[in-house]
Amino acid sequence: MFNFEITYRSPASKARLGMLSTPHGIVETPAFIFCATKAAIKGATPQHMRQEKTQIILSNTYHLMLQPGPEIVEHMGGLHTFMGWEGPMLTDSGGFQIFSLGHGSVAEEVKGRRGSTRPKSLLTINEEGATFKSYIDGKRHTLTPEKSIQVQRSLGADLIVVLDECTPFHVDKAYTEQSMHLSHRWAERSLREFQSVPEGMQALYGITQGGVYPDLRRQSADFVNSLPFFGHAVGGSLGADKTQMAEVVEMAMEPLDPERPVHLLGVGGVSDIFYGVTQGIDTFDCVHPTRLARHGGALVPANLWKSLGEDPRGREHMNLRNARFRADPRPIDETCGCQTCQTFSRSYLHHLLKAGELIVMHALTIHNVHFMNRLLTAIREAIAKDQLEDAKKYWVG
Amino acid sequence: MFNFEITYRSPASKARLGMLSTPHGIVETPAFIFCATKAAIKGATPQHMRQEKTQIILSNTYHLMLQPGPEIVEHMGGLHTFMGWEGPMLTDSGGFQIFSLGHGSVAEEVKGRRGSTRPKSLLTINEEGATFKSYIDGKRHTLTPEKSIQVQRSLGADLIVVLDECTPFHVDKAYTEQSMHLSHRWAERSLREFQSVPEGMQALYGITQGGVYPDLRRQSADFVNSLPFFGHAVGGSLGADKTQMAEVVEMAMEPLDPERPVHLLGVGGVSDIFYGVTQGIDTFDCVHPTRLARHGGALVPANLWKSLGEDPRGREHMNLRNARFRADPRPIDETCGCQTCQTFSRSYLHHLLKAGELIVMHALTIHNVHFMNRLLTAIREAIAKDQLEDAKKYWVG
Repeated sequence: MFNFEITYRSPASKARLGMLSTPHGIVETPAFIFCATKAAIKGATPQHMRQEKTQIILSNTYHLMLQPGPEIVEHMGGLHTFMGWEGPMLTDSGGFQIFSLGHGSVAEEVKGRRGSTRPKSLLTINEEGATFKSYIDGKRHTLTPEKSIQVQRSLGADLIVVLDECTPFHVDKAYTEQSMHLSHRWAERSLREFQSVPEGMQALYGITQGGVYPDLRRQSADFVNSLPFFGHAVGGSLGADKTQMAEVVEMAMEPLDPERPVHLLGVGGVSDIFYGVTQGIDTFDCVHPTRLARHGGALVPANLWKSLGEDPRGREHMNLRNARFRADPRPIDETCGCQTCQTFSRSYLHHLLKAGELIVMHALTIHNVHFMNRLLTAIREAIAKDQLEDAKKYWVG
Repeated sequence: MFNFEITYRSPASKARLGMLSTPHGIVETPAFIFCATKAAIKGATPQHMRQEKTQIILSNTYHLMLQPGPEIVEHMGGLHTFMGWEGPMLTDSGGFQIFSLGHGSVAEEVKGRRGSTRPKSLLTINEEGATFKSYIDGKRHTLTPEKSIQVQRSLGADLIVVLDECTPFHVDKAYTEQSMHLSHRWAERSLREFQSVPEGMQALYGITQGGVYPDLRRQSADFVNSLPFFGHAVGGSLGADKTQMAEVVEMAMEPLDPERPVHLLGVGGVSDIFYGVTQGIDTFDCVHPTRLARHGGALVPANLWKSLGEDPRGREHMNLRNARFRADPRPIDETCGCQTCQTFSRSYLHHLLKAGELIVMHALTIHNVHFMNRLLTAIREAIAKDQLEDAKKYWVG
């Protein structure tokens, strides 16, 4: 059922092309995984996602544990049937939200842009697991490695992930090391639970830890390489900024088994994806494209600004709220084939944002989904032709 | 360009079938007109509306005057191009919102369910027109009959409507009569302005007034019959409740020119549509189907409840928030062919509502749009077969 075949390796970098086979279809990698957090893409139905050529989506175990509950999803035939998505799916372990929610943006903590305090909803972490209060009704829940796998089994996604402790950035090396070892023990327990029901419809990802410390990153890579995980995810703190993130991704990737697919958790900026691909990352996920859409932002290639004689640096999106678009009859991006660019002008989208109309969130989500799928298609084509640097100039500037 | 052909007259009532031809296509009547208030259906794109077999939509002159402004819509090629809807469209005169907004639900006032105070945003009404403050920026605007036609010309809908004073319910006969005469003078000025630019791409509807008073209704019908309007709309107060509304519609319809299409303003309940059709109404509009969707309600035929052995009376919709649907794998309505009923279960829709997910508004809007189009198709078929009473049993109970 599961297989990861590397079909091409770039001579210029660690970039590669792959075919990730799952019971619900094949994902051509590198690929972007869209976040259907609560079993729904915010602003688009599964049918819309397919129309815009989406390969794979993910849902969050934490949210679905609490609402509607794994027993309901299982009773309804699993996540694929429940939400009407027939393609490949991933679920995370639930850990990330337990350790991060309550901080506002869940990504801020791990990316080091905040203090290291834990969310108030997290009651205890010990060897057994993590106990937290539901954000819905305040009820206490304990998530253990075994429970996370059991819940992910009920949900039934193709790719599932071991429970880990998401180590905050602002902790010292001693804490990071101790946390890494806890996550390793949880990984072994996750794997044991996973192997206890050998049905072959799911594949398990281990997570490499070690924060920003090269020796810990190597030690954690050796650990995950030694266990029979289908794939690996780069977890733990990625550092304080983009420069450090690049260093950490490089040191995390270097010792990892090169035959297994690797997922980079929670990263989805266009330039970050270009960098990750050159380090051998196969899949990415992030709420950014769909969240940006709900705030009036449309992802555009740097080349769009250059063609207007404007500076593309740091401008990965177009803010349709801007008054300059009030009477602009052009689509967001004349080179884009999405439903929104085929139908609506910048002027109309600007009006919808000013008028607070619901469908503008849908229209921009469709555009951003199409953009990400188009971007990753372009990246795959560029890897195949050894032209990744040229592609980067078009998309990033 | 414009034509209204009555293709069948029921022997049992004033119900009739018609073909309303416009420059953007033919509307088979009786038909329901969906409200794209600010040039957007809340929760569905024009493409979705076409997929669910929508014939005609309307936009509100009042809202579009203020945002984005008629000059922007005209600059972008008119409403059809601006919003991407190629089918027939209607705009109202803007009067209804001026006289009603500020009251919460704009329909409450005319339907007599509230006191007769005017909205605070309405500054003056005099012979010339109505002056009001914009709800967006507080700026003063004056809407005259001429201005309303000019704005509607810029917007470019197929069917447009004369400006009238929307008389509140709780006024006496003297006020109603005085208001009717003012509206008649405004109608003559609207018609004169309309005829001053004879381009043939728009057709004008007159509005019959007279409140709940039979002699005024007759007088107003004689007035609109005498002028070369393409169609008529039933306006003014329709009374305090459904019983009185039925009486008022009957007395308003009786003396109206039977060859012209007639629109019933702001009415869209299923049983109201069945009644309106038997009085010779050709088109209806109401925000109800799309607004209900945004609150978790799915329109269903009475027969659905009957097939479950439940009492259908007064239950024109299913509230998907209800806990009884938590683990219900069935679609909203097994007899419905909409995209939502083809894809999603009641259980999933219930989950989306609990989780506050955006796409549930879209999913229920699609269902309700499909429902209304299916209802009106069934009504047309029933008229053709002289089986309107049977159809009513299935849909209303």
